[in-house]
Amino acid sequence: MALYTEVLLDQRPENGVIGAHLFKAVQKEIPAAGPGQILVKQTHMSLDPAMIGWMSPDTNSYIPRVELGQTMRSSGFGEIIESNHPDFSVGDNVMGMMGWTEYLVSNGQGLNKVQPGVDAETALAVFALPGLTATQGLYNIGKPKAGETIVVTGAAGSVGSIVGQLAKADGLRVIGIVGSDEKADWIVNELGFDGAINYKSDNLEQQLAELTPDGIDVFFENTGGPIQHHIFNRMNTFGRIAVCGMIADYTAETPALGPNWIRLITKRITVQGFAMPDHFGDVPALLGKLTPYVMQGKIQYRTHILSGLESAMTGLNLFLTGDNKGKLIVKL
Amino acid sequence: MALYTEVLLDQRPENGVIGAHLFKAVQKEIPAAGPGQILVKQTHMSLDPAMIGWMSPDTNSYIPRVELGQTMRSSGFGEIIESNHPDFSVGDNVMGMMGWTEYLVSNGQGLNKVQPGVDAETALAVFALPGLTATQGLYNIGKPKAGETIVVTGAAGSVGSIVGQLAKADGLRVIGIVGSDEKADWIVNELGFDGAINYKSDNLEQQLAELTPDGIDVFFENTGGPIQHHIFNRMNTFGRIAVCGMIADYTAETPALGPNWIRLITKRITVQGFAMPDHFGDVPALLGKLTPYVMQGKIQYRTHILSGLESAMTGLNLFLTGDNKGKLIVKL
Repeated sequence: MALYTEVLLDQRPENGVIGAHLFKAVQKEIPAAGPGQILVKQTHMSLDPAMIGWMSPDTNSYIPRVELGQTMRSSGFGEIIESNHPDFSVGDNVMGMMGWTEYLVSNGQGLNKVQPGVDAETALAVFALPGLTATQGLYNIGKPKAGETIVVTGAAGSVGSIVGQLAKADGLRVIGIVGSDEKADWIVNELGFDGAINYKSDNLEQQLAELTPDGIDVFFENTGGPIQHHIFNRMNTFGRIAVCGMIADYTAETPALGPNWIRLITKRITVQGFAMPDHFGDVPALLGKLTPYVMQGKIQYRTHILSGLESAMTGLNLFLTGDNKGKLIVKL
Repeated sequence: MALYTEVLLDQRPENGVIGAHLFKAVQKEIPAAGPGQILVKQTHMSLDPAMIGWMSPDTNSYIPRVELGQTMRSSGFGEIIESNHPDFSVGDNVMGMMGWTEYLVSNGQGLNKVQPGVDAETALAVFALPGLTATQGLYNIGKPKAGETIVVTGAAGSVGSIVGQLAKADGLRVIGIVGSDEKADWIVNELGFDGAINYKSDNLEQQLAELTPDGIDVFFENTGGPIQHHIFNRMNTFGRIAVCGMIADYTAETPALGPNWIRLITKRITVQGFAMPDHFGDVPALLGKLTPYVMQGKIQYRTHILSGLESAMTGLNLFLTGDNKGKLIVKL
């Protein structure tokens, strides 16, 4: 009898502390695929900042939170081991919401076959939540135009790095906000951003003014934090702000206040929050938009690989400390 | 030689103090209409909160501010006294941007003939800036649907009272925020709002919760101030916020901070600032939308009449104190 491991949410985080104490690993027998079902061996699991929201006690989260005792939710990449389903064959690679588990049985719903030649890392780092989120927010909210200036926070993150590269390919001036000099170096010298600011440095307002001499037309917000106010204060007339993440505030006892709204009027700015679960129906169109950029080699990424299912439990902390060095992927 | 009075902006307000010391009244000889021109005797002049922005030192204002030494800007209603213009006849009533003056000569640009039967007060209180602003913000940003709940701040004001009545006519639950019990009484018992809150009373959060049991779908913001946060915190999924005015903050040394943006994501809210000058090209369409409601008697208004051009100088303070009892109009 072969066993596999699955990880359940056991407690909700308090005071922003995330760690193994919140989870419970259980051993189960590897099931067989029933009629119309497939058995998937997950090989790579994606860790995303949104997970912290799914675990949190706040009932306002935008998709149903993970209940205590449920398998922790995540997207992943895996190989089909058994198939009784006409659309899937043994050996096919699939991706989709798999959860924190080494094996799963599925009727195929919500799982998509991965094109041969697309490896697990590219699939999870670009063609999954990060790339879809970047494409949705940048094009449908940010509405970028060549010659405009965009500022992206969390710019070395899985979403922000794609947003910046797409905007750069479209002829915008692209400034990224990051949390380390190493990340600043990477987005400027490897990804081709026009400038970067380490938000842990001094004189943020002045640095931003120097890097955005013509003001800011599009603001892609992944983090929150004090620099939000400086960026907001340089928004141009008819500016667009896509609010994608507020990681700096998710675990705060009292989230920091936002900018005063007068500038929304004087500059006629639109601020729009979004979340990918609303747009899963648009995935084919989003992939259609994103894929040519990837094929033309315009989207680079880097991954930060953790090993083994249990490493996910503490790995989520990397989003809070900013110590992740690329798309977080757990290799199972 | 007949003289008339014109009022120029002489100083910019400091520390939010508005009064006669900011203006300079000058006497001029009444001119004659030249070729292609008309001479208009302004009979009614509109005072609007936006004027405080036009006078302010802040160069971020959304339409060009009034320069020192220029005639103070305003819209008005008047009668044609002389005409050398093929489209206008002596005795026609016109409205448009006339400025703080008793007479003006114009080539007709920016002046529109008023339909016979529409009196000066209806013209300025409904078919001018207030009604156009209400219609633009409510329909193009608020996108109201029958059965939804809308909260309007400045609800007894010239814009807010129209927004609420339009929304009520469209089948929404309409709650207004006002600055006195008298105004609360007026919007509920005369205009038909479903509820009102005097923002100077206690337990704002609890009052709001009781009046909006299903949350808030549309927020039409005319004022700013602390209640903004309570309203924001009750916004429903896919809520729309039209930011039209922030009168509570215009003259503040340090404008109050706004709400944290996490809720923008969790509820996928859109916040959009707007200003009518961007939409003057849409006036025919806006009037086409607004007029049927007026014709069906669904839009009531009240006016607060001041007498004589000089009364405008101190009259603007009524916006800051909230003591205006309806659309402010100066009768010349």
